Amino acid sequence: MKNQNYLWHPNTQMLEWTKFPKIVRGEGMWLIDDDGNKLLDGVASMWCNVWGHSKKELISAIIKQTKKLQHSSLFNLTNEPAEMLAKKLVKMSPNMAQVFFSDNGSTAMEIAIKIALQYWNNLGLKNKTKIATLENGYHGDTFGAMSVGYVPEFFSKFRSKLFSTLQFKVPRQYHLPRNITLKEFENICLEKIEDRLSKDDMIAAFVMESGAQVAGGVNIYPKNFQKRINTICKKYNILFVLDEIATGFGRLGSMIEYKNQDCHPDIVSFGKMLTGGYLTFAATLTAKKISNSFLGKFSEGKHLFHGHTYTGNPIAASLALENIKLYEKTKLIQKIQKTSKVFENRANEFYELELVGDVRQKGMLMGVELVNDYLIKTKKSINKIVFDEGRKHNIFFRTLGNVVMLVPPLAISNNEINLLVDGALKTVKGISKSLK
Amino acid sequence: MKNQNYLWHPNTQMLEWTKFPKIVRGEGMWLIDDDGNKLLDGVASMWCNVWGHSKKELISAIIKQTKKLQHSSLFNLTNEPAEMLAKKLVKMSPNMAQVFFSDNGSTAMEIAIKIALQYWNNLGLKNKTKIATLENGYHGDTFGAMSVGYVPEFFSKFRSKLFSTLQFKVPRQYHLPRNITLKEFENICLEKIEDRLSKDDMIAAFVMESGAQVAGGVNIYPKNFQKRINTICKKYNILFVLDEIATGFGRLGSMIEYKNQDCHPDIVSFGKMLTGGYLTFAATLTAKKISNSFLGKFSEGKHLFHGHTYTGNPIAASLALENIKLYEKTKLIQKIQKTSKVFENRANEFYELELVGDVRQKGMLMGVELVNDYLIKTKKSINKIVFDEGRKHNIFFRTLGNVVMLVPPLAISNNEINLLVDGALKTVKGISKSLK
Repeated sequence: MKNQNYLWHPNTQMLEWTKFPKIVRGEGMWLIDDDGNKLLDGVASMWCNVWGHSKKELISAIIKQTKKLQHSSLFNLTNEPAEMLAKKLVKMSPNMAQVFFSDNGSTAMEIAIKIALQYWNNLGLKNKTKIATLENGYHGDTFGAMSVGYVPEFFSKFRSKLFSTLQFKVPRQYHLPRNITLKEFENICLEKIEDRLSKDDMIAAFVMESGAQVAGGVNIYPKNFQKRINTICKKYNILFVLDEIATGFGRLGSMIEYKNQDCHPDIVSFGKMLTGGYLTFAATLTAKKISNSFLGKFSEGKHLFHGHTYTGNPIAASLALENIKLYEKTKLIQKIQKTSKVFENRANEFYELELVGDVRQKGMLMGVELVNDYLIKTKKSINKIVFDEGRKHNIFFRTLGNVVMLVPPLAISNNEINLLVDGALKTVKGISKSLK
Repeated sequence: MKNQNYLWHPNTQMLEWTKFPKIVRGEGMWLIDDDGNKLLDGVASMWCNVWGHSKKELISAIIKQTKKLQHSSLFNLTNEPAEMLAKKLVKMSPNMAQVFFSDNGSTAMEIAIKIALQYWNNLGLKNKTKIATLENGYHGDTFGAMSVGYVPEFFSKFRSKLFSTLQFKVPRQYHLPRNITLKEFENICLEKIEDRLSKDDMIAAFVMESGAQVAGGVNIYPKNFQKRINTICKKYNILFVLDEIATGFGRLGSMIEYKNQDCHPDIVSFGKMLTGGYLTFAATLTAKKISNSFLGKFSEGKHLFHGHTYTGNPIAASLALENIKLYEKTKLIQKIQKTSKVFENRANEFYELELVGDVRQKGMLMGVELVNDYLIKTKKSINKIVFDEGRKHNIFFRTLGNVVMLVPPLAISNNEINLLVDGALKTVKGISKSLK
């Protein structure tokens, strides 16, 4: 048996890898392996790293809290970092009143779904349980999160165990039906949504990513698409639930993306960048009308039936607080808005490459979609091909299918973002050459 | 509106609490609030704390790794702590070959279920998708975990979104049907299981907690009950999946509870105590035949479609490694076996109290079941009543419904475990008095 690895890597065909580069240190935007090779962290360690590695303020925050109180439960007790972080998140997030902490993006979305379902149940509308979503959405890999997401290639093997949702099409310029403009298709999508939502009073919630679908291949919504769905939801008394786990906290150039989209969600989730990318942690925020519906006598059973052992862990919460403080202190969002211009200005260079079908960019997120026809010749995964080629140019890539993701740490410098784009261009050229 | 709390506490009727004690420090078995009050951590901060608070070796492990590498992804890369921890867990766990890391017990069980389903799919048996479980089981609060668990009072509001399972009765001395002995009822349960499993070749897996059902109210299985289910599973080619998240790593007096139960699971999950109780982290382990079925050409799509951003986080993995090292160095399991005798010897004292219906104990776990009739008079939750009374005696309690849980940190001293029992006795007496 060739697979001698004790460690099972995520979303990985283990037989395809004889060896994974072993990262032993991180310095700024660079990961350093045990042979001393440096790799530019081109995907922000799966879209979560904000400041680069070994940011001294964040290290200090972890150490300080670790020395003080490592963990104490939110079951019957509270702790200061969790309290302060909840307050901070509420102040930052328009319309939000209360925060439920959990351990990762999947659980944050599971909680969002549970809150939405129980909200109507608490109001006595026990049959209002259907959930509407967009095709190609992604909200995590647990069963509830898979059910509301559903990227077919990820989830098809578990189909029999997913709950059904109402799925609606999402307008995508590069994948439009023939003979139709993006605007026309967007209007058709929205009409279908309104048509369906207007006819069904059993729909509890509409769940979608805020600003863009990321894991679905970097699909940036047309302007106002999200807002118009929000309006439809309000009109037909359906909760509007947003997932900002990958898109919030600066990735698309805004701190709170739903604010930028002029939306008023009832529930929103944050994750990935909440701790700056060092420890796992996530938050589900709710508007006042939502959290209030869970109040009552204990015997009424209106409280939320959800909890994880480490909910509100003080180390992770302290780290998140320091992270948010740094966003404010360094005016990171303003910096991102400048850096992302460099990114934007160079996007066109990819179109000159024969392998490239489309480039989609917003803020600090870029997806370069490769044309499958070329790549189909090889038996390796596109991810492995791109990763191996990227290493030659000192970049760490992880593709999403045939989409090369450029998702740098948010605080990346202009110089390093140019290095990333240069490396990505060389990588795609290199692959092109090797396929000939 | 009375609920001014920004922080939404888990499984909590927020209106019932005007103030949660704010824990600012932890020292050994004691939690200290912002008024300087000390509380003995009677539930090991929700069953996860091993050494007490502020254990210097664990603090050092966090600090050391934090200074070196805070996080690097297991998507395409690896890191030393995750590699070493995977190897260590495999060596400790008979029959296990590979480890998939995730962020909490719920996700570890979601992964276990996905692996079990995809295993048969990989072998071409695409209809072998049913899951068998025990009534009253608990495996976490996400949709997949709720589906295989199902404690009715926790999950009823989400029933419409849970996938169905085959649920079998579990023998419980205190809740036996009339006119039947435990042994007779156990045999009936096992006969029903064998009868059903023998007739259905579409059952993918049998999922159960290892050693005892904890969240279901401390139901300790009769000797060999678990082993006999394991035997039935092997006989009918059904995967045997164990959840040791709350029961492994010493809680029931054994490091690996399935070894103690003489079982050979195909998949097992660990969580809670894996990091000693300081950071959230979990692991799903699989036998060789399981992990091997996921190997193939990339294009065959046999690899596991699951991943979380912080999977295999090096800080949490380093902490877990140091934690396990301490178990070995201090011979903790042997110590637990002695300390739990003190616990066992004092269990009978609870029966003398009028409120107590039953006491169940194994290792460092005790459940004192209160008689509901007395408590029904009050409008508060039993948890709140017990917690408030417990504070008067300097103990932190969190009940499970009407079961008072005594779940101390594993390394508790004889002196402190006596304090815990004394405090619990006083607490139950105090409640009894206040109800008159």
